[in-house]
Amino acid sequence: MTNAKPNILVVNDDGITAPGIKVLMHAMKELGRVVVVAPDSPQSGMGHAITIGKPLRLDKVDIYEGIEMYSCSGTPVDCVKLAVTKIFKGKKPDLCVSGINHGLNNGINVLYSGTMSAAVEGAIESIPSIGFSLDDYTMQADFSHCIKYVKEIAQQVLANGLPPATLLNVNFPAGAHLKGVKICRQANAKWAEDFDERMDPYKRPYYWLSGVFQLNDHGEDTDSWALDNNYVSVVPIQFDMTAHYAIPVLNSWKFNV
Amino acid sequence: MTNAKPNILVVNDDGITAPGIKVLMHAMKELGRVVVVAPDSPQSGMGHAITIGKPLRLDKVDIYEGIEMYSCSGTPVDCVKLAVTKIFKGKKPDLCVSGINHGLNNGINVLYSGTMSAAVEGAIESIPSIGFSLDDYTMQADFSHCIKYVKEIAQQVLANGLPPATLLNVNFPAGAHLKGVKICRQANAKWAEDFDERMDPYKRPYYWLSGVFQLNDHGEDTDSWALDNNYVSVVPIQFDMTAHYAIPVLNSWKFNV
Repeated sequence: MTNAKPNILVVNDDGITAPGIKVLMHAMKELGRVVVVAPDSPQSGMGHAITIGKPLRLDKVDIYEGIEMYSCSGTPVDCVKLAVTKIFKGKKPDLCVSGINHGLNNGINVLYSGTMSAAVEGAIESIPSIGFSLDDYTMQADFSHCIKYVKEIAQQVLANGLPPATLLNVNFPAGAHLKGVKICRQANAKWAEDFDERMDPYKRPYYWLSGVFQLNDHGEDTDSWALDNNYVSVVPIQFDMTAHYAIPVLNSWKFNV
Repeated sequence: MTNAKPNILVVNDDGITAPGIKVLMHAMKELGRVVVVAPDSPQSGMGHAITIGKPLRLDKVDIYEGIEMYSCSGTPVDCVKLAVTKIFKGKKPDLCVSGINHGLNNGINVLYSGTMSAAVEGAIESIPSIGFSLDDYTMQADFSHCIKYVKEIAQQVLANGLPPATLLNVNFPAGAHLKGVKICRQANAKWAEDFDERMDPYKRPYYWLSGVFQLNDHGEDTDSWALDNNYVSVVPIQFDMTAHYAIPVLNSWKFNV
């Protein structure tokens, strides 16, 4: 990082008009030059999807005064790819922040989350990256208690960098009385799915995904524990998916081919 | 696993009529009772996307004689969730196989791939799961040299199980002269993106994603190395994204909040 104002890419998955990204872009404006590239419609649950089979639109928009903003027809990951290639044109931003998501992304949600996937893509592009999420799923969510933490964590990342091939997953409890920051691991938690089965007007069945978030982890070092105890959870995330511990096990197998 | 015929869920991301899934379902039919649940249209690059904001269709179809098949309007991950909840109804299948993908899913592609994300979802559901992919992106791909490996690897997984919270990412070189199986780690490789900028008939710009797969890894223990040297690459994959090595680094930071 040079002494010049840092360039900060702001993305999200709830779409460019979501309240959460407005809070994030205004917080980042105090730290550097902000460029927003966000989906033109909500993209929750898009995970690490990219658009291959159809073209993408990227349109400059003028929503909040003094902030350079682009609306993109693609997924959150598409937004990061387009930002790096077409807006920053190879001169990588100093920081990529995603969110603030309307809803938690702790535990296994890292995989389903468009917010986190955008941050993962930033990290794949060697940009220090952070995803922020709040435990409030409504569009009326109050983010005011998150702002000083968002700025502090972003400043620490700008100052210290992050270990190679790592990004941060930051989640906030709802409500004002935060006890501080906890560095955590991803909780062993999953969705116990259900599908609501309904009939359409033509008597054909359709299904709506529903489910309950199931914590299968009693550790006090997890993001779920931290959130339940009113801490801001910070989990370092990697994108090497190799289960290194399993390599010796598989090497002991004899393949008869 | 009991002595009864194993129940095998077959999924993919190229869609229910892709040649790759036909090869996979016929190979699996020799090992057990097969149920196919696959997207009704191609879903390449969908990553771990799930469908939240709209309903899903799941229709029984009769394409290949003697195989129970369902076509799903959702993503590859939706297919697995619907299969477990609505078809197997809680009695988990003994094996989940995904593919065979028309195109490689080595290195960082695990994150973008619908094929692999379906297998990851199987593993999250505690089902032993394997994703298979071939280095041929065409619909005319020849899978014949893969079949004996597909069956052998599936049989080993049925017999031995997999280490907890682990699945397999199996990739095949194109062409008949395979040298055997190599257990590998995910190569440090990424896409160097580009976007083709074009004009629509109304003189508005649009973008098509393109790019070059860039190997930044000289290790001889990677999936990319194995494939380049005509081995079948087998990478154990985890879905705990925590960068455990980074936790002490972050714990040394002082947060001024």
